Amino acid sequence: MGRALRSGQLHEQLLPKRIALPVFASDALSSVAYAPQEILVILSLAGVSFYAYSPWIAAAVVVVMLTVVASYRQNVHAYPSGGGDYEVATTNLGKNAGLTVASALLVDYVLTVAVSVANGVDYVGATIPIVGQHKPAVAIAIVVLLTVVNLRGIRESGVAFAVPTYAFMIGVLLLIAVGGFRLLVLGDELHAPSAGFTIRPEQTDLTAFAAAFLILRAFSTGCAALTGVEAISNGVPAFRKPKSKNAATTLLMMGLVAITMFGGIIALGLASGVKVAEPSVVARDLMRPDGTPVGPDYYQQPIISQVADAVFGGGSLPFVLISAVTALILFLAANTAFNGFPVLGSILAQDRYLPRQLHTRGDRLAFSNGIIILAAGACLLLWGFNADVSRLLNLYIVGVFVSFTLSQTGMVIHWTRHLRTERDLRLRHQMHRSRVINFFGAVMTGLVLIVVLLTKFMVGAWIVVIAMPILFLMMKGIRRHYDNVAAELEIDEDYEPAMLPARNHAIVLISKIHKPTMRALAYARATRPSSLEAVTVGVEGEEARQLQEEWERRGIPVPLKMLDSPYREITQPILDYVKTLRRRSPRDVVTVFIPEYVVGHWWEHLLHNQSALRLKARLLFKPGVMVTSVPWQLHSSDRLTGRREPPAPGAVRRPGQVKDDGIRTS
Amino acid sequence: MGRALRSGQLHEQLLPKRIALPVFASDALSSVAYAPQEILVILSLAGVSFYAYSPWIAAAVVVVMLTVVASYRQNVHAYPSGGGDYEVATTNLGKNAGLTVASALLVDYVLTVAVSVANGVDYVGATIPIVGQHKPAVAIAIVVLLTVVNLRGIRESGVAFAVPTYAFMIGVLLLIAVGGFRLLVLGDELHAPSAGFTIRPEQTDLTAFAAAFLILRAFSTGCAALTGVEAISNGVPAFRKPKSKNAATTLLMMGLVAITMFGGIIALGLASGVKVAEPSVVARDLMRPDGTPVGPDYYQQPIISQVADAVFGGGSLPFVLISAVTALILFLAANTAFNGFPVLGSILAQDRYLPRQLHTRGDRLAFSNGIIILAAGACLLLWGFNADVSRLLNLYIVGVFVSFTLSQTGMVIHWTRHLRTERDLRLRHQMHRSRVINFFGAVMTGLVLIVVLLTKFMVGAWIVVIAMPILFLMMKGIRRHYDNVAAELEIDEDYEPAMLPARNHAIVLISKIHKPTMRALAYARATRPSSLEAVTVGVEGEEARQLQEEWERRGIPVPLKMLDSPYREITQPILDYVKTLRRRSPRDVVTVFIPEYVVGHWWEHLLHNQSALRLKARLLFKPGVMVTSVPWQLHSSDRLTGRREPPAPGAVRRPGQVKDDGIRTS
Repeated sequence: MGRALRSGQLHEQLLPKRIALPVFASDALSSVAYAPQEILVILSLAGVSFYAYSPWIAAAVVVVMLTVVASYRQNVHAYPSGGGDYEVATTNLGKNAGLTVASALLVDYVLTVAVSVANGVDYVGATIPIVGQHKPAVAIAIVVLLTVVNLRGIRESGVAFAVPTYAFMIGVLLLIAVGGFRLLVLGDELHAPSAGFTIRPEQTDLTAFAAAFLILRAFSTGCAALTGVEAISNGVPAFRKPKSKNAATTLLMMGLVAITMFGGIIALGLASGVKVAEPSVVARDLMRPDGTPVGPDYYQQPIISQVADAVFGGGSLPFVLISAVTALILFLAANTAFNGFPVLGSILAQDRYLPRQLHTRGDRLAFSNGIIILAAGACLLLWGFNADVSRLLNLYIVGVFVSFTLSQTGMVIHWTRHLRTERDLRLRHQMHRSRVINFFGAVMTGLVLIVVLLTKFMVGAWIVVIAMPILFLMMKGIRRHYDNVAAELEIDEDYEPAMLPARNHAIVLISKIHKPTMRALAYARATRPSSLEAVTVGVEGEEARQLQEEWERRGIPVPLKMLDSPYREITQPILDYVKTLRRRSPRDVVTVFIPEYVVGHWWEHLLHNQSALRLKARLLFKPGVMVTSVPWQLHSSDRLTGRREPPAPGAVRRPGQVKDDGIRTS
Repeated sequence: MGRALRSGQLHEQLLPKRIALPVFASDALSSVAYAPQEILVILSLAGVSFYAYSPWIAAAVVVVMLTVVASYRQNVHAYPSGGGDYEVATTNLGKNAGLTVASALLVDYVLTVAVSVANGVDYVGATIPIVGQHKPAVAIAIVVLLTVVNLRGIRESGVAFAVPTYAFMIGVLLLIAVGGFRLLVLGDELHAPSAGFTIRPEQTDLTAFAAAFLILRAFSTGCAALTGVEAISNGVPAFRKPKSKNAATTLLMMGLVAITMFGGIIALGLASGVKVAEPSVVARDLMRPDGTPVGPDYYQQPIISQVADAVFGGGSLPFVLISAVTALILFLAANTAFNGFPVLGSILAQDRYLPRQLHTRGDRLAFSNGIIILAAGACLLLWGFNADVSRLLNLYIVGVFVSFTLSQTGMVIHWTRHLRTERDLRLRHQMHRSRVINFFGAVMTGLVLIVVLLTKFMVGAWIVVIAMPILFLMMKGIRRHYDNVAAELEIDEDYEPAMLPARNHAIVLISKIHKPTMRALAYARATRPSSLEAVTVGVEGEEARQLQEEWERRGIPVPLKMLDSPYREITQPILDYVKTLRRRSPRDVVTVFIPEYVVGHWWEHLLHNQSALRLKARLLFKPGVMVTSVPWQLHSSDRLTGRREPPAPGAVRRPGQVKDDGIRTS
């Protein structure tokens, strides 16, 4: 942890708005790298003529985004503790709703990694052709790289977020400004690389119903632009005071930037004649100006690269830079999930829905397991869907809108409950206003969720619809197990704390006479047990005799007991002997002292202590037996002595649990 | 272990010759299933005309086998302890020679599994066509099956060996008898299924040198018939008295049976016109009577099946039975390696060349690791060589002859040394005779080793030549590590055993007040430490307050110390506190009592004790600190309470370490 921070120091770590924006916005902003394009991709299934619907679809997405931003501004004020959608749903709709949100978010983290990395590789491929030719392999390699970096532990820093995020914002906004200027002021014509192309429709002669279905599907895909909007509501504690106000302002800023980018890119894309088709059919359906299909060697550049090509020229420095920062922010968004996943895990573990040790964010092992599960899931998706963003997006948005809908519904109940008791008219007025906004948000996101499920279930969303209940049931099961154990361990009010075992019989396990043994004996004697015996298993007849002799020659003042073991088995004779002791005096306790080597290399574990560990594991099953490890530090262990933990994950976005009053509470 | 046997009971378990023969001979006898065929396969590279050399090659193999059998009869008398080639080489030629033998044997066990299973599948394929079409997959499946069976633990029994081995011996000897009778007495003509076929030579117009090289290669492949001959010399302790004499007799019987089978099969194969080509070229080079290649759909039946077809008719009951028992004995030979591998591991571990816990054969975990390594190596070979016996044999014989040669050389030195002191003329005469036999054996096997290396290095033996030194160096490294540690731990003669720590400060870790905590407190008090404190880490402000309250309300007679932890980290605050205690009084010892849950399902480990385990691992690095686990058995642990170990591997062939005088010695 480096030097652990005291509560008093925490304020220094809080984020000003200009740093908070990039820290929390990379995920949300990065989605404009694919959302506009995917609207066009879906529409292209019915041919280029359907591109005409795209401005309306984009407008609808913007309306949803404005609604969601407005709604989450209410959340931020009402729940400054940073529990996010999980807390809001749990508090207002009950545990099952909260757990549904949690399942949705866990699935979504995996998809965030998969989609962001796949799209990032698209943008790298725009300037490095060989990457475009091996997308799934490169994408999986990048996930592995992120995994290794996060397993080693990186200290998240605001600056590390700020530079690429601002570079992306400036790059894309500049692109939109220059493009708009050339188009509207200079009257230039912009030509994307695919401007002269046409697309052979996959679906022709659509019925009105089929056309509407396709348009709704394009809309639900475009709603991918909303992913990550809720991030700020999880991070309120990281803001400077006044926390809620600053968070709400940052959220609004982020929303406006995202909407500008989203609208600008789709407008410039249409103006410059971008033609994009589904990756799986692009070779066949995308036609060059001469009417021939582009064939399998064609690399379909992603939309921001095509627009940058049209505005600045293909291969120009601005084109390369914009493609690069877009790729970078997408990888940053993926990395966000690597930090968010353990933070959510920690909150769920606190409520005992996940293994307890996840609660301690400092626990690297648990954290590492989380990262590996996340990365494995993402790699599986990238491999299974061939790193195809269009197909991955079919899975993505279900979880997001499940949590949006439940969170906003919860907020409506929150305000209703508060209105029941609140008497201050000014506050009541505010609450009424907030409730209307959240109600509108709940209805809107609920409708989008239904549209998403209807239009995407068959093409991939079913996977998420299966995965979420599995996670839900697993977490329920873990909670039930913890509850059962807690009940089993509970003590009555009339429990007598002074119930002491009568006596303490100590036995020290001896393999040979060396320093660890002597230390164990000395320590055992220092605990002044009622009786003390050294015990050895007579594995080798000759060695046993020698041991006995040396024992006597050295005058070791503890009796040595030899146990017979014809099969050189060590565990069973000791277990049997302990059982005998216990039977002789059931009210006493038996303490078994086991000398243990402390080693410095992983492979040394294979060479030492294995018998001790086995024995210990078995002895623990015997009631009334304590097992004491007396460590002996081998020289090789020196290298690990001063070892400290690497920084905890998500330290920037949840810098400790600080309430508005500055008192550490959880 | 079931009920552990006492030394006195051991005699009941010893094997009469009629059971010892099948127990130790399955490996050696099973090699006649492939050795005769592979001589013909190699010769066929120069065309069918070269088959004329095969009787001479077979005769040479028989001479080598007789020599080896005669030599090992000397080993059995000189080394009745069952250490085998490793013991002989170590005792007479030094540690490095012994370790070379050990490396060779370890590699050979892997190859025994691969070759036997691959050939067994060939024989299954003779009657079940679909198996022949998916040989590598079926072979790997069988290795997996053997692995699972051996991981679960099977009690080896003499009868389980006797039935298939005798069935195989009777089947093949009957086949040879009936075939010989029909051929010589009735004057029938025998026709193998491939009798009318011809083979297009891969190598034509051979120079005299190339022809000699090919013949030598066929000879060295034929020497595969010798694998497993040494098995009896490892198993002398399992024989009834007089052990050495019985073992020597059994060895001779086995040699004679093997030679009869080997010679008979190759003779009947030639007489019935069997044509076999290398599996990789069979489709192209093997020609039907009409001069067309047999093509990829042809299934080349192995030699015993072809001979059975010629003698009894294809598809007849005897044909099916003989193919089946041949497959069975081959799988039995593979299973032998699963038992021999841990036995060798146990001997090497005793000499500290492998991790110590392998020494205890009762250690299932170490044993399981050995089995998994063996199976993984065999599967890799089966997959890499497409379960092709001809190619696998290129790797097989190097290790066998390395150990033969070193063992026989060691025996020559053994007799020379004994002759230096022996005065009894009769014994001296016997020793001279033995020395001549072993000298002859050493020269012969050494020559074969050179031939094998020369003819097979390029086609695969190089893999073994690389693998053996790697194993050698690994074992040397392990031994050096153990020696270094032993030196580090050694105590001087003037070591003062009464050096007691001054006082014992005990701390009990408390997370909440429940039964495990109260038991840990009671036990800690029972050890009557100099000072006793309960320590808790104040992870949650509110919970910490409640804990303090409950502590006081219950009147627990131990002071409760709260450690602060702003980052919810548990390990570091406790480590720091222990460090403070140690610094305050360095001559005292600190005992940390940790309540631990004992659980009954593997997955419960994920939910409990993780923090405790982490803390324990870290505390062990602190000098002067003892860690005591106070177990609390959860109800779920009941199911494992009475658990006992499955039988030890290789229990039949090494039924305990019994010397001729009946005294257990090692």
